Amino acid sequence: MTKHSISKERFLEVRHQTELICKSLQAEDVSIQPAEFVSPPKWHLAHTTWFFEQFVLSEYKAGYKVFNDDFAYYFNSYYNNVGKRVMRAERGLMTRPTLQEVLDYRAYVNTQLSEFISNGTSEEIFNIIEIGLQHEQQHQELLIYDIKYIFGNQPSFPVLDYKIQLQAENEPQEFLQFKEGVYQIGHKGEGFCFDNELGRHKVYLHDFEISNQLVTNSEFIEFIDAGAYNDFNHWHAEGWDYVQNNKLEAPLYWHKVDGTWMHYTLNGFVEVDGDLPVTHITFYEAYAFAQWKGMRLPTEFEWEVASPQFNYGQLWEWTNSAYLPYPNYTKVDGALGEYNGKFMVNQMVLRGGSVATSKNHCRPTYRNFFQPDMRWLFSGIRLAR
Amino acid sequence: MTKHSISKERFLEVRHQTELICKSLQAEDVSIQPAEFVSPPKWHLAHTTWFFEQFVLSEYKAGYKVFNDDFAYYFNSYYNNVGKRVMRAERGLMTRPTLQEVLDYRAYVNTQLSEFISNGTSEEIFNIIEIGLQHEQQHQELLIYDIKYIFGNQPSFPVLDYKIQLQAENEPQEFLQFKEGVYQIGHKGEGFCFDNELGRHKVYLHDFEISNQLVTNSEFIEFIDAGAYNDFNHWHAEGWDYVQNNKLEAPLYWHKVDGTWMHYTLNGFVEVDGDLPVTHITFYEAYAFAQWKGMRLPTEFEWEVASPQFNYGQLWEWTNSAYLPYPNYTKVDGALGEYNGKFMVNQMVLRGGSVATSKNHCRPTYRNFFQPDMRWLFSGIRLAR
Amino acid sequence: MTKHSISKERFLEVRHQTELICKSLQAEDVSIQPAEFVSPPKWHLAHTTWFFEQFVLSEYKAGYKVFNDDFAYYFNSYYNNVGKRVMRAERGLMTRPTLQEVLDYRAYVNTQLSEFISNGTSEEIFNIIEIGLQHEQQHQELLIYDIKYIFGNQPSFPVLDYKIQLQAENEPQEFLQFKEGVYQIGHKGEGFCFDNELGRHKVYLHDFEISNQLVTNSEFIEFIDAGAYNDFNHWHAEGWDYVQNNKLEAPLYWHKVDGTWMHYTLNGFVEVDGDLPVTHITFYEAYAFAQWKGMRLPTEFEWEVASPQFNYGQLWEWTNSAYLPYPNYTKVDGALGEYNGKFMVNQMVLRGGSVATSKNHCRPTYRNFFQPDMRWLFSGIRLAR
Amino acid sequence: MTKHSISKERFLEVRHQTELICKSLQAEDVSIQPAEFVSPPKWHLAHTTWFFEQFVLSEYKAGYKVFNDDFAYYFNSYYNNVGKRVMRAERGLMTRPTLQEVLDYRAYVNTQLSEFISNGTSEEIFNIIEIGLQHEQQHQELLIYDIKYIFGNQPSFPVLDYKIQLQAENEPQEFLQFKEGVYQIGHKGEGFCFDNELGRHKVYLHDFEISNQLVTNSEFIEFIDAGAYNDFNHWHAEGWDYVQNNKLEAPLYWHKVDGTWMHYTLNGFVEVDGDLPVTHITFYEAYAFAQWKGMRLPTEFEWEVASPQFNYGQLWEWTNSAYLPYPNYTKVDGALGEYNGKFMVNQMVLRGGSVATSKNHCRPTYRNFFQPDMRWLFSGIRLAR
Repeated sequence: MTKHSISKERFLEVRHQTELICKSLQAEDVSIQPAEFVSPPKWHLAHTTWFFEQFVLSEYKAGYKVFNDDFAYYFNSYYNNVGKRVMRAERGLMTRPTLQEVLDYRAYVNTQLSEFISNGTSEEIFNIIEIGLQHEQQHQELLIYDIKYIFGNQPSFPVLDYKIQLQAENEPQEFLQFKEGVYQIGHKGEGFCFDNELGRHKVYLHDFEISNQLVTNSEFIEFIDAGAYNDFNHWHAEGWDYVQNNKLEAPLYWHKVDGTWMHYTLNGFVEVDGDLPVTHITFYEAYAFAQWKGMRLPTEFEWEVASPQFNYGQLWEWTNSAYLPYPNYTKVDGALGEYNGKFMVNQMVLRGGSVATSKNHCRPTYRNFFQPDMRWLFSGIRLAR
Repeated sequence: MTKHSISKERFLEVRHQTELICKSLQAEDVSIQPAEFVSPPKWHLAHTTWFFEQFVLSEYKAGYKVFNDDFAYYFNSYYNNVGKRVMRAERGLMTRPTLQEVLDYRAYVNTQLSEFISNGTSEEIFNIIEIGLQHEQQHQELLIYDIKYIFGNQPSFPVLDYKIQLQAENEPQEFLQFKEGVYQIGHKGEGFCFDNELGRHKVYLHDFEISNQLVTNSEFIEFIDAGAYNDFNHWHAEGWDYVQNNKLEAPLYWHKVDGTWMHYTLNGFVEVDGDLPVTHITFYEAYAFAQWKGMRLPTEFEWEVASPQFNYGQLWEWTNSAYLPYPNYTKVDGALGEYNGKFMVNQMVLRGGSVATSKNHCRPTYRNFFQPDMRWLFSGIRLAR
Repeated sequence: MTKHSISKERFLEVRHQTELICKSLQAEDVSIQPAEFVSPPKWHLAHTTWFFEQFVLSEYKAGYKVFNDDFAYYFNSYYNNVGKRVMRAERGLMTRPTLQEVLDYRAYVNTQLSEFISNGTSEEIFNIIEIGLQHEQQHQELLIYDIKYIFGNQPSFPVLDYKIQLQAENEPQEFLQFKEGVYQIGHKGEGFCFDNELGRHKVYLHDFEISNQLVTNSEFIEFIDAGAYNDFNHWHAEGWDYVQNNKLEAPLYWHKVDGTWMHYTLNGFVEVDGDLPVTHITFYEAYAFAQWKGMRLPTEFEWEVASPQFNYGQLWEWTNSAYLPYPNYTKVDGALGEYNGKFMVNQMVLRGGSVATSKNHCRPTYRNFFQPDMRWLFSGIRLAR
Repeated sequence: MTKHSISKERFLEVRHQTELICKSLQAEDVSIQPAEFVSPPKWHLAHTTWFFEQFVLSEYKAGYKVFNDDFAYYFNSYYNNVGKRVMRAERGLMTRPTLQEVLDYRAYVNTQLSEFISNGTSEEIFNIIEIGLQHEQQHQELLIYDIKYIFGNQPSFPVLDYKIQLQAENEPQEFLQFKEGVYQIGHKGEGFCFDNELGRHKVYLHDFEISNQLVTNSEFIEFIDAGAYNDFNHWHAEGWDYVQNNKLEAPLYWHKVDGTWMHYTLNGFVEVDGDLPVTHITFYEAYAFAQWKGMRLPTEFEWEVASPQFNYGQLWEWTNSAYLPYPNYTKVDGALGEYNGKFMVNQMVLRGGSVATSKNHCRPTYRNFFQPDMRWLFSGIRLAR
């Protein structure tokens, strides 16, 4: 993390963006939790606020009075160091506080933190606020995933009034070539980054080629039509079991209606556009698709080295790298140390960023990570060989 | 079912009562389903309305236009004969339609059905409307159970603005005595009843005694304090497993705080009042309590015979009778035939009625029934020997 | 229980019968537990022996030395009063003691108990030995069910060298008629019976008719061919869910091979014989079959009253009676009190006896009971109306 | 794989070793499957034999007659390419064929294959036989794990007559130091290796230190006594959940008896020896131990580079590397291609070899792999920093 201060305007702009995403939600929409990995939108709105209250205002603002003594218990996510909390699976039980009370909570903390920023503070504290803003932007993306899951799993398929739109990549497909050798990996320079990107270090890569394009819906429909979901040869053993047990036969939100592939998007239930990149697929499917093509997924290191030469940022791209610490990775002390390190097992790295990602998060060293069976995120496939 | 017509006023009064129960709910409260046996309040509001639309208006009102073509799919409960429906476990996924849309639906159907009633109709159709009203009153009771479960399982323990209050039974306890012989069981006479009460018939009862009182919280605390939850001798094998696996050690909604038993009521989180009847206990606990006392639960036949001699109507009283058809029970044809008969296995009969029951449902022949592990209902214990 | 003594010969004969059932089992067959409701054959051999050791020899034989101190822990079934025990689901983990050691245990206890009987003892103790013998005969029947389940769920379908053979009932079908009135139910007279048969008492029955025949495989195939497994109208709601979730489409052990119904019997894998009574059906299927026929299952009281007029003893006949205590049922004190009473919830009564039942168990008052989803027993269907 | 032939003697010696491991097993021991990840010993005996029959004799020996047509179905493990098979979870249902029949099967195949080898064959086929032998040696190790699990989970704790004995490492502890740079990884040279070791390639390592010793039981007891099982700070989030949900508080087979740590070993139930290396721990526990020590686990690359400088081969050492393909990894065509690649997700690499491992498997490039929650293997911990 670098030396900097944060303007009140930037703070409020990030905060406002969260509310913008939720502006067309009804109060009925914000409390439910249709799966354990989904959080109610109201919870995101409150939790991101609690983060600033807990780690900045309560710690550093003289005479700060917490908005509601119970909220720390309700809206802590997974910071065991900070005390007891409502279990993840029970977030969807809290119909109260109401949406309006949570919006009042946001306004209160915004006012208090704006005032605190205006008075100036130390670099250390600015760095915590910076993490809070980055954290809120991460939750903005999760909010979009969760709203899509809430809307995409009910029979009326509601529309969200917030622009999320994939684009066709219209250049001719090409495989970019890279030579073997020692490369530098990890974050450098001035901008913000998370602890898991740090420890810039060398890796040795061998010759590889990587596509300049994401895999499209058309290509994925070919995979489906070739019966690949029913041919174990393309799959990890665990992926094959997963696909069989959960009866996967297409990406999430896809439904075949009268012979045509339709899917739910946040803009409604529409026909699948073959030119757009395929999304909402698990790592298992990304891997199987590559196997079926006779290719493979890139490692996260190959991806990072090659990324300056292609466009990215539409979809998080599954790599074939497990999420593991870089050499000399060090966990931060205290609650913020729980941010990344403790997730470094049984997850796969995704690189790039998506249409739901805050633009300042789309940097070549950003390491996103999910379990290989997750598909409610905006995930995609880029091939290597 | 008897010859009668139904006034528009009575129809609207029953309908209004449902809304009265919900009047202090927030939009956030009405969509969630915290357990499969709970339905979202919004679902009750809509489902009871769909019942009138489906079985009366669509069938018999000339030119009736359904409010929304999709609602039949959303709000059918378990009538397989009427077509596809949202599965019970997925009711809590429907954040839409909103509460306001459902209230509009209620108003629309109220207007249409009022008009239909005013024009007069056949006795057969009045009988269906009567079932619809009885059905809505049953859902009023379930609504109260479900709201209590929703409010009682979140950390803020909200209060409901609707009067539900148990009373102490202040007479001295006494065991009423009955002689063996042939008794008549089942519904007779003019008033409304469900098909499961019909087929008035004879049963032979042996000498028995039955308490004029419900078991109180004080008595139940004695049972707890005696370690009865940890002594398998009092329990059914299945009940013992249930209590162990689910770590039951007190009625639902009870919490021991600093040595004192507190519980959530719809009026808030308060100390348990020893004089009031104990409630929110499973059949297993009711049976174990009776065993521990050296007594037993009455059969539903004993209860029905004895009921004119004691007060009832505060709590549904677990009997030791399984829910089975009376001799000559006949299932009604069509969808309404699914009302009762198909539940006649692995459930126990409760008799009497509760503070959440519509007063015209508290008749001596009414057969309520639940699985023995259910305890979110207002259940109670009356001893026999 | 009646005044009597027990001869050493009868004791040894019952004990020998158990070993006869197992004589063609291999050591490999006797340790596994393919489902929680199945016990390994070795466990039955040892548990029935432990019963005599625990309740007779250790209690009453002066200077008796237990065969192995650990066996009480290994081979207690569900008598919580007698101490800790290996959990039911873990019986299949005990590969040791070996079959030979268990047979040695049987021989040891046989010798000791024979000696004890020869010396004469009190009526009270003879009654316990009598229960031990009845208990062993019940386990002989369970042994046959369990062996069939073990053999019928492996690809090689082994054959058991022990005669178990259903017979066609060749008389013309007829419905026997009974008049309403007060009838006596329960055990009377001299012979042995279990506590759940006692308390001879009056019940009032209404007019009924009952078939003189069991339902045959041919009739059941008609039910299958009529699509009844896919028509919810015939089923209890719970039965319908069970059948759907477990994909039931025929009795247990049935397989359709090239368009023909085959089934595993203890004599091998053979074509289903249409003239034989149908067996290995759940209560749900028995009920649905009766519904489909426009009839019903008899109550256990109707069955008991009618039984002198038809043949029974081929298959346990599902009744529509839940397993509940008779009036004035009293639980025996101590461990033997756990024999029956604690199972009186969520089980259905079967009457009659099966080809696997010891002949002296086939009496009109014997109350067998199982959960409605069990079908590895030799169950059958008799219709009433 | 290298040019070589295989002698009949070596073939028979490997085969004999499998039978030696099983020589003190009783027939009762060989059929059960106490957990899905355990296979019945009889299954190992047959499956390793089937491998030679399927991939060598049936394919290449003129006029070969399979021992039993059904065995291919019974004893295929996971080779989807070779046809249908008994599902893994159902291996424990097969009490037949008996142990003796399986031993006869082994003898038959041994004779046939010895004859086949004696007649000489092509290098390609020798390579398949070589894989068969390596495969059998891998199953010898699994056999020992599985027997230990079978014996260690029953109350009588049987002893196995086969020497498995850990040794204390008596040298002083030291951290060996390595300098950053490019290193060669993967198998080279003449000897046998698996496909996952191939593709010798370069990796860039940074400075690291690694212990010359395994972590001992004494050290692990300190970890337990420090309350580390109850302090989330040391654990992966997933590991913490696993430990909580499964109530782990010590290695597998450990029991605290009267304040002393005892454990089941194949030589019996004995006191834990503090000087011996700790074993039967999950990856989660290995990681948490390292965290608690303020150190970390080595990567598999660090381990491979450092291994010439320390002793290994007592326990499989958890590394912090996920099991992933080496650059240019290529899957073999056909059934043998299912050997390794399809497991390359959500597993962690272990290096070194154990007391249960065939000595010729203990080479520096051997990549073993298991899910992070497995602990029935002989796993251990070596620290790095």
